[in-house]
Formats: sequence, C-alpha cells, structure tokens
Amino acid sequence: MDTRVISKPHERLAERLAPELDAMNALIRERMASEHAPRIPEVTRHLVDAGGKRLRPMLTLGSAIMCGYDGPFHINLAATVEFIHTATLLHDDVVDESGQRRGRPTANLLWDNKSSVLVGDYLFARSFQLMVETGSLRVLDILSNAAATIAEGEVLQLTAAQNLATDEEVYLRVVRGKTAALFSAATEVGGVIAGSPEAHVKALFDYGDCLGIAFQIVDDLLDYQGDSAATGKNVGDDFRERKLTLPVIKAVKQATAEERAFWIRTIEKGQQSDSDLEHALSLLAKYDTLAATRADAIGWADRAKTALGTLPANDVRDTLIDLADYVVERIN
Amino acid sequence: MDTRVISKPHERLAERLAPELDAMNALIRERMASEHAPRIPEVTRHLVDAGGKRLRPMLTLGSAIMCGYDGPFHINLAATVEFIHTATLLHDDVVDESGQRRGRPTANLLWDNKSSVLVGDYLFARSFQLMVETGSLRVLDILSNAAATIAEGEVLQLTAAQNLATDEEVYLRVVRGKTAALFSAATEVGGVIAGSPEAHVKALFDYGDCLGIAFQIVDDLLDYQGDSAATGKNVGDDFRERKLTLPVIKAVKQATAEERAFWIRTIEKGQQSDSDLEHALSLLAKYDTLAATRADAIGWADRAKTALGTLPANDVRDTLIDLADYVVERIN
Repeated sequence: MDTRVISKPHERLAERLAPELDAMNALIRERMASEHAPRIPEVTRHLVDAGGKRLRPMLTLGSAIMCGYDGPFHINLAATVEFIHTATLLHDDVVDESGQRRGRPTANLLWDNKSSVLVGDYLFARSFQLMVETGSLRVLDILSNAAATIAEGEVLQLTAAQNLATDEEVYLRVVRGKTAALFSAATEVGGVIAGSPEAHVKALFDYGDCLGIAFQIVDDLLDYQGDSAATGKNVGDDFRERKLTLPVIKAVKQATAEERAFWIRTIEKGQQSDSDLEHALSLLAKYDTLAATRADAIGWADRAKTALGTLPANDVRDTLIDLADYVVERIN
Repeated sequence: MDTRVISKPHERLAERLAPELDAMNALIRERMASEHAPRIPEVTRHLVDAGGKRLRPMLTLGSAIMCGYDGPFHINLAATVEFIHTATLLHDDVVDESGQRRGRPTANLLWDNKSSVLVGDYLFARSFQLMVETGSLRVLDILSNAAATIAEGEVLQLTAAQNLATDEEVYLRVVRGKTAALFSAATEVGGVIAGSPEAHVKALFDYGDCLGIAFQIVDDLLDYQGDSAATGKNVGDDFRERKLTLPVIKAVKQATAEERAFWIRTIEKGQQSDSDLEHALSLLAKYDTLAATRADAIGWADRAKTALGTLPANDVRDTLIDLADYVVERIN
C-alpha cells in the first residue's frame, strides 16, 4: 500500500494523470531521438531528465480529461507543449548566457551555444509535427499564435528589461509572452481537442492566462525574497542581470529624484557595485513593493480560480483550482 | 518599352512572377512587423532588404502556377518558405559566428546574438501561422517535416563537419538538411496547394531535392575555386572554418598516410598555418576533386531537369528547367 501523503496539488495532479504522463514521456523519448544526429538526444535528455514539474503538459492533459476527452491526441498536445517549453529554455539559456538551470549546468555550457540554438530549433520543428498529427486546424492556430507571442515577448524583454520607462502594462505584456501564452495555449487546446463548448474553452484559456501571470509574478518576487536553497536561484539575480521586474517597477514609479538616479545607474547603465543590491532591497522595503507584488500575484491566482469555477465540478478541475493557490503559496 | 535583355533564368522567373512576388513582399512586410517589439522589424528588414534572389519562394510560386493554381495561398506559402529561410540564416550566423552575409554586416554583429536567436524564433512562429492559414494539413505536414530535417541536418553538420570519417553519404544528408529539404518542400507544396496529381507532386519534390543538392554542391565548390568579388566569400573559408565539404571528402578518400595526417591536423584538430590552404588546394588539384565535384553537381542538375520534364510543358516549367542549368553555370 502506498502510504505517502500527497499534499501538493501538482503532485496530486501527477498522480491522477500518471497513465497519460507515462504515455507522453514515451512519446517525448521517441520524438526527441535522431537517427543521424546523436547530439540531439544527448542535449534534450540532459534537459528532459533534469525534470521540472511537467506543469505545462499537465495543464493540457488535465484540461482535456476534465472536459471528458477520450481520444489519443491530448498526449500529442502535451508533448507539443513540453517540447515548445524545452526549446524555449534552450534558447533562453543562450540569450541569458546562463550557466545553471534546475541546479545542473546548462546545455550551452556542457556543449555549446550552437547546439542549444539548433537543438532548440529541432524541438520546435518536432513540436510542430506532433500537433499537425492531431489534424485540428484550430489547435494549430492556437499554438502557432502562442509561439509568435512567446518569441515577441522575449524580444520585447530584451529592450524593455533595461528601460526605466517600462511600466506595469509593458511588464504584463512581457509576462504574457514569456510565460502565460504557453500556459493559456496549453489549457485552451485541452478544451478544444475535447470539443468543449466555447464558454468552457474561454474559461480554460482565462485560467491558463491568469495562472501563468501569477506564476511569473511569483518567480520575479522570489528572486528578491526567496530562499536560494529552495529556489535554486540567488537573491538579486534579476537585479544583477538588470531585469526590470514588478517589485522594482513599483519602486521606480514612486522613486524620489535621487532614487531614480540609483535605478538609472544600476539597471539602465548597469554600473553596479557590491552594496547596490542591499540598497535596492531597502528601496523595495521602503515602498513595500514585495507585499504589493504578492497581492498582485494572489489577485491573478484568484482570477484563475474564478475562471475554472465556471466549469462543471470534477476531481481534476478541483485539483487545478488548488494548483492556483499552490502557485502563490510558493512565496511563503 | 523595356529593352533590357533578361537572360538569367532566375531573372526571367522574377519577371514572370512579378505580381505574385509583389503580393508576397507586401505580406512579408505585414507579417514581420511587431507592434510591441520594434527590434523585430529592425532585424528582419536588415536581412530582407539585403535581398537575396528570393529563389525559394519563386520555386513555390512557380510550381503552383505551373500546376494551374488560381487561389491565394501560394502567396502565403512563398512567404512561409522565405521566413523559414530567413530564420535559418539568422540562427546560422549565430552558430557560425559570421560577421558578413550578402556583403553586409550580419544581424548578430549589428545587434547581438540574443536578437538573432529570438527574432529567428519569431519568424519561425510567423511562418507557421502563415501556413496554418492555408488550411491544408498536407502542406503543414510537408513543411513541418522539412523544418525538422533542416534542424537535424544543421546539428549533424556540427559534429560531422570536422570528422574525417564523414563520407559522401553523410555529406549528402547534411546537404539535404541544410539546403535541399527547403527547396523540395518549396516545390512540393506548390503542387499540393494546386491539387496536382500525385505523380506531378512527386516530380516537383524530386526537382526541388535535386536542384537543392546541385545548388549546395556548387556553393561548396565555389568556396575553393570562386572569384571572391563575385561570390562575396573568400576562397578557402570552409577550409579555415574546418568544414569538410565534397571537394575535400573526395581528396581524403584517396589520401596517402602523409596527406591524411595533413587533413587530420588542419580539419579535425584545427591547427592551421598560413601556407596550409595552398597545400590543401594542391591536394584537391592532385586528385582533380574540383572537376569531380563539378561533375556531381551537373549530375544532380540533370536529374532535376529530368524530373520536371515529366510535367506538361509551359513557360514557367521551361524557365525552371533552365534554372537547373543556371545553378551549375555559376561555377564558370
């Protein structure tokens, strides 16, 4: 008898969706192979084995099953979503010149930037093949739009992140691009493939969109208040990398002339000394922007729960509702 | 009256397809825009304006028109093919650390590698949206397979290019990936969108495949015997970049032990001094591999012409047949 107490919603979801996740993992292993270019499975295995919570594919599987889908294509779509996510990570690590991801050296460090760029392209192409197999043009439309939004958001971030004029509206657009677009596409296609009524599909989209925004805001918050042992990130990484995220945007908005000069020097010009992070944290504390950011995240999680609450109750729906709470509980 | 003598087949093709190319250029300008991330059109405009011959989209437009297509979607597909090509160039320049393309500084030099990676991703996503609009699952299948073959070929090249065990079979696989897969997809989708009989679609695929292989072999040949003023490349770039291409593969196959040691040192180990290129050229001359490579290119061009010769004669078909000759005439 299994006596483990499974309390976290993403673990309950993984348990509930175990057969589908197994099928998806088998499909992923099959499709990330390459007869002729062994470098491809080397790189992808490194990343896929590192784990991650398979959150995005679980959103697709959960949405489809919640809507009563009994065909085979939610497996394809879950693998599609995971491939797009993995490809994005590979390219992000090149763009950010990262050395670590999920506590392991990144692919660009282990192999080279070339491999990360090209294997990412391979996974994009593979994801595209997987979704074409579903034969649903609407699914293809949703996922191709998501892919464009993701890339546009990433480019926007390149220019917006170090620009002090970036306000909460621009921040939200970046967040939708880098995170929420794939969450909302993941849930929406689950409903579409199940042939759900439009109102349900719309509710699934809203749930994914709001959940993704909450998720990213929490990520950005943890960067300033997190426990580096738990998050695998160092406090202040975003500050050092000159990424303008919500806690700082809220502080910049209320900054005195002197404080503004500090942000211009450290974020826009990137002239930082060792004591600057401490001063930045004191400015966030002065305006209590971590609490305000936390409140925003809770607001988005609540909206996610409300959206899903309009769908017929069942165990998967209820676990997904709990997941929205869990995403913001990571803050504590 | 226009009194210019238009003799080159790609120029005759551009003249014949002028209205379609105009429509495609308008579509490209529309779709490479980004309301929120102005960096995107900056980068793409730099590359798209630099020109190139629009060879790949002309293959799609020509194939569709030759097959009697009178709908709107060949314009989408031509733009799709050009976007995939442009995205590939952006990523290639990052991978090759190139500083020049078509006689202009590359995007990665003008902006940064980050922009090249992410704008490339954006163009891939946009190309995907464009083809989804055609509503043809078969077209989507062909182009998603081509995208996977392209990426796989590029990764294969990473490992195969500097490995002296790379033989003509592996070389051909790399060439299909990096060049011929997009040529053959470009011609095949033209036939598919026109609803042509299977035999015609197959002939169009073969034409594109053989033309692409001939094109790439000629490119690799010109690297060793070209006039740098005409090609915009320096003689021996591939040698210096340690890329094992057909002229060298043919020389390695016949190498004495001493010659083999030379190739191992210069290509596999990358230990090159100033006089090595001259010695490499003397080895190519010793085995007459440039002539043998040229003969291979002509053979592929002939196969391309034979394939297209099975289709009903018309002016576009005949220009495409001439194009196959022109591709190898670049050698002279």
